[in-house]
Amino acid sequence: MSPIVLASGSAIRAKILKAAGVRFEVVRPDVDEDALKKTAAAEGVSIEQTAARLADAKALAVSSAGRIVLGSDQILALGAQSFDKPKTMREARERLLILQGRDHRLINAVSIAKDGEVVFRHLDTPRLFMRAMSAAQIDAYLDAAGEEILASVGAYQIEALGGRLFERIEGDYFSVLGLSLFPALGYLAREGILAF
Amino acid sequence: MSPIVLASGSAIRAKILKAAGVRFEVVRPDVDEDALKKTAAAEGVSIEQTAARLADAKALAVSSAGRIVLGSDQILALGAQSFDKPKTMREARERLLILQGRDHRLINAVSIAKDGEVVFRHLDTPRLFMRAMSAAQIDAYLDAAGEEILASVGAYQIEALGGRLFERIEGDYFSVLGLSLFPALGYLAREGILAF
Repeated sequence: MSPIVLASGSAIRAKILKAAGVRFEVVRPDVDEDALKKTAAAEGVSIEQTAARLADAKALAVSSAGRIVLGSDQILALGAQSFDKPKTMREARERLLILQGRDHRLINAVSIAKDGEVVFRHLDTPRLFMRAMSAAQIDAYLDAAGEEILASVGAYQIEALGGRLFERIEGDYFSVLGLSLFPALGYLAREGILAF
Repeated sequence: MSPIVLASGSAIRAKILKAAGVRFEVVRPDVDEDALKKTAAAEGVSIEQTAARLADAKALAVSSAGRIVLGSDQILALGAQSFDKPKTMREARERLLILQGRDHRLINAVSIAKDGEVVFRHLDTPRLFMRAMSAAQIDAYLDAAGEEILASVGAYQIEALGGRLFERIEGDYFSVLGLSLFPALGYLAREGILAF
């Protein structure tokens, strides 16, 4: 049994950790994300701190004795507005019409819990500059990419066809994908949980 | 037949383009890179401009009527010193002992040629900060990663186990991998060669 647990059902987070040669178990956390987000909004908590709260909640929901649990959350923000995953291709189209030709932030929070306590936190905010695109180009993209993009808050998968939509990214690519790999693994290496 | 040609034998460059849904043909350019590098060094050309010359040479070596050819080159630089790919695991070990605990640059040049002329150039210089590692940690990494790392100038594959060696990257991740995707595809989209 690996001591490392990924508290996330996200396929891309598991893929990132696996590519880096980390052995871990996946446990999907039982967290009411919508309720947590509503509470945070009612309390006037920033988008960044809302992501941090969600990462904490996911890590803590899965934490058990002797295990190191990684929780993570990602929120797309445009100015003070935040977005959830689009539910339909129609919503995805609307999302891309808003995002094209401007920049947005992909807030990524990582929390590591041990024995029921958060022992490490990291918050990262890469900024993505999407190219200006016509409605026809967005439709061509949606046709080619298909419903898989509904798994992403931005209606793009940058590691796939979505890589064609951007002018540039300022910030960490792994945070854009959904898991800030370097700081998380840095913690695990410093603590001797990973050999390097 | 696709009008787009990738003038490179690099597996990772092909993988990046393919993931972004670009159709292309691979043609390995017949270029004497060592001779070009020696000439550039004798002329006092900077590392950056040497990479640009190599990208030009690769694109032009493959260019033919009606086709859009992508050439690219990557050089690792530490201060004013540049490095080629390590030839043995012993050399890889020496390389990592030099790179650990400090930052280096991965210079990436892209040239696009059309009808025997370079029509687009891009130069990018991401900076990578490698964690401080002991010789024992480097040995553990080399044992786990195996000879595949000899395909990389830095003796790491950041998209695989090498993702565990870094504190942070400043700059574009695709340039680190070996092909500055966003500017290259931006050009192809602006020219109408890609639909989006």
